[in-house]
Amino acid sequence: MQQLQGASRFNRRAIKVEQAIQLVVESVKPGLQESIALWQAGGRRLAESLNATTDWPPFARSGMDGYAVRSADTMQASPDCPVTLRVLETVAAGGLAAGAVEAGGATRIMTGGAVPEGADAVVMLEQTADAVLDGLPAVQVKAAAKPGQNIARSGEEFRLGSLLAEPGTQIRPGHVALFGTFGYASVPVFRRPRVAVIATGTELLPVTASLGAGNIRDSNSAMVAAMVEQSGGVPLQLGCMSDDPEAMVTALVEAFEQADLVVTTGGVSVGDYDVMAVIIRSIREGSGGLAELQISRSRTTRLLFDKVAMRPGSPTSAAVVDGKLLLALSGNPGACFVGFELFVRPAILRLQGVAVEASMPRKVTAKLESDFDKGSPHERFVRTRLFTKEGCLHADPLAFNKSSMLASIPDADGLIRIPAGPDGLLKGTIVEVLPL
Amino acid sequence: MQQLQGASRFNRRAIKVEQAIQLVVESVKPGLQESIALWQAGGRRLAESLNATTDWPPFARSGMDGYAVRSADTMQASPDCPVTLRVLETVAAGGLAAGAVEAGGATRIMTGGAVPEGADAVVMLEQTADAVLDGLPAVQVKAAAKPGQNIARSGEEFRLGSLLAEPGTQIRPGHVALFGTFGYASVPVFRRPRVAVIATGTELLPVTASLGAGNIRDSNSAMVAAMVEQSGGVPLQLGCMSDDPEAMVTALVEAFEQADLVVTTGGVSVGDYDVMAVIIRSIREGSGGLAELQISRSRTTRLLFDKVAMRPGSPTSAAVVDGKLLLALSGNPGACFVGFELFVRPAILRLQGVAVEASMPRKVTAKLESDFDKGSPHERFVRTRLFTKEGCLHADPLAFNKSSMLASIPDADGLIRIPAGPDGLLKGTIVEVLPL
Repeated sequence: MQQLQGASRFNRRAIKVEQAIQLVVESVKPGLQESIALWQAGGRRLAESLNATTDWPPFARSGMDGYAVRSADTMQASPDCPVTLRVLETVAAGGLAAGAVEAGGATRIMTGGAVPEGADAVVMLEQTADAVLDGLPAVQVKAAAKPGQNIARSGEEFRLGSLLAEPGTQIRPGHVALFGTFGYASVPVFRRPRVAVIATGTELLPVTASLGAGNIRDSNSAMVAAMVEQSGGVPLQLGCMSDDPEAMVTALVEAFEQADLVVTTGGVSVGDYDVMAVIIRSIREGSGGLAELQISRSRTTRLLFDKVAMRPGSPTSAAVVDGKLLLALSGNPGACFVGFELFVRPAILRLQGVAVEASMPRKVTAKLESDFDKGSPHERFVRTRLFTKEGCLHADPLAFNKSSMLASIPDADGLIRIPAGPDGLLKGTIVEVLPL
Repeated sequence: MQQLQGASRFNRRAIKVEQAIQLVVESVKPGLQESIALWQAGGRRLAESLNATTDWPPFARSGMDGYAVRSADTMQASPDCPVTLRVLETVAAGGLAAGAVEAGGATRIMTGGAVPEGADAVVMLEQTADAVLDGLPAVQVKAAAKPGQNIARSGEEFRLGSLLAEPGTQIRPGHVALFGTFGYASVPVFRRPRVAVIATGTELLPVTASLGAGNIRDSNSAMVAAMVEQSGGVPLQLGCMSDDPEAMVTALVEAFEQADLVVTTGGVSVGDYDVMAVIIRSIREGSGGLAELQISRSRTTRLLFDKVAMRPGSPTSAAVVDGKLLLALSGNPGACFVGFELFVRPAILRLQGVAVEASMPRKVTAKLESDFDKGSPHERFVRTRLFTKEGCLHADPLAFNKSSMLASIPDADGLIRIPAGPDGLLKGTIVEVLPL
């Protein structure tokens, strides 16, 4: 096997994590829109502002099953000394009263019914008893009603034209209810970004293969595909490539034709056969590096970074090829996972119209549950469990936390950010955590 | 419109929330299984235990690009006084060494390569320099290597047969990586439960309709459908029904033929036309109540509860019809939302094989961020934002928190559980929160 890398492989300058994320997010623009049925919109990202199409509630609504009354009529009412009112009529939800509630009268009304003119309160059924007054139906009211009681006023929650949600908002079930209320049977959302996933490494076998000596199965492709789905994207799994730059360039060119974003795993470090490192270097040097690297010859390419001051995953690299983002993640599963959370997820969110700031990784603070005694020249992202105790959030770092290790990835609820420094951190320290 | 309910509508006995959840969850059994492609398995629930099919790593792997050495040979090495070793050969990832590393020798090895016999450490490339020894390729090692350094031992993470995940586990991207590593190209998962959704209420119009006086659009169906999707189920939206018990019974019978679980919204309270209350009462009384209620005549029905000691949503009801669960939620959107989180989501999880205990609503603790000065005879679930500050989780109750109100549902990150009592709670109190 021909060695690919020369001495210049070591000349990579690390940039800070925040700066790398910023470069990634700023290189991506929101994608195309489509319209989707309301009930399927949950989890998608809104593409246009939606506004209230009426006041809400649209009319004064009863919040209870009971009687619409004039509160002044009930001022003296008590369980021992109820007030008796004539029952004028009954309003079901969806119905309308024939007339107003006049002094001494009450209109039986159900939850959601339109409160008739004249009434300013609803007394719940449980505070009433059926009665007869002058041979006609009446009701005994056993408690004084306060003005406005059990009535939702027209426009109390929304005024016509009020903003319901902004572009980029992830549509939650509550939004679905809101949009339905205001008559949006379909909603404009950003299309799910197509994300090509290519694993590199001559040692990789498809998941279906039997293991040979020295080989492992490609688990990154499926993991990244699942993470793409989770972020709202559509994964295009383009399989495993061996460490052959020419074939890899061809694969990348095809990937960019199909996808909005291309993610590779593996081959980014300083190894002799690190194919993505060779391709990234040719982009950095603008020279084509290897003659066959059409990717830098016939296309507009721009390096964003080829090293990040972090562990794991410092060789993580990013470039823009003809306006589309290429994210080259480490092949170590732990580093690949961290690289996805820091760079790929924000890019996929940004493609779905999420604002630059909001597409960056979320941050929470938590108390470190045990000493972390490993220093590091770069900041370090450590997989952790999260739990609450007495109102505080605790981060308990997981074992098997090396970048090559798989075992603790499924158990991680977050990534603790351990600042660079020689000593690590003591139990009880307040740490920043990127929740998963 | 004929009134449906008589005086017995008030004879409902409230049970505690915990007991109601327990009854719901225990009435449901895990459903059928299916097999799904690995990369599509993210978010689904595993149906069988999966185990490691080999030791992992399957062989001693290099964690770095560098040189496999005998650590004893490098004991004296330092930057000023490097040790020079003969380079025996090069091992790429996926390749195998032709021979062992003997004393005084080093094998160039890439990340993921199988460490040759004889070597007990890998020195990273950055701590070496190319050299020549007796006219042959050699390497200068500039740091003493510790035994085991940069080598992942065979079986270090998993032994053949180790449990990877249990049935009911929600498959995270990390599980996908694990399963792929061990050759599971497809995985057994529980089928997505089919959940019928029926909204009741004569006042309801389809989302596409123009509002008439006294009418509102059915927003619960789409909200519940989105929540069903979010819980792993497949929503079957069966539309809106007016307050007609006969038609409603027919709709329910059809729903049970198609679905694993039936959810209704509205008509559960003490109103004159509350159709689900009538049907639930006929189940409670075992008599058929109304003659046309075939649901209680030709089928095995069992009431679980028809009142829960909580706000909002106290009239929430549940029954088992021919072994399948019927959950009748309140029609007020806020109460419907809470009822879903407390009862429907656990039922959908249980149908997907989640253990009884694990399918109950999750609990965290948080500090109440402002006074909540409203007492209640029953415990109350209050929509809240959640945020962390200095390692503590804070719950900031949202405005527009009445059960009829929609406005704050999209903003809620959790539901604070306010215990029953006359006074509410003070700012700073540690509260239990059901995270959304």
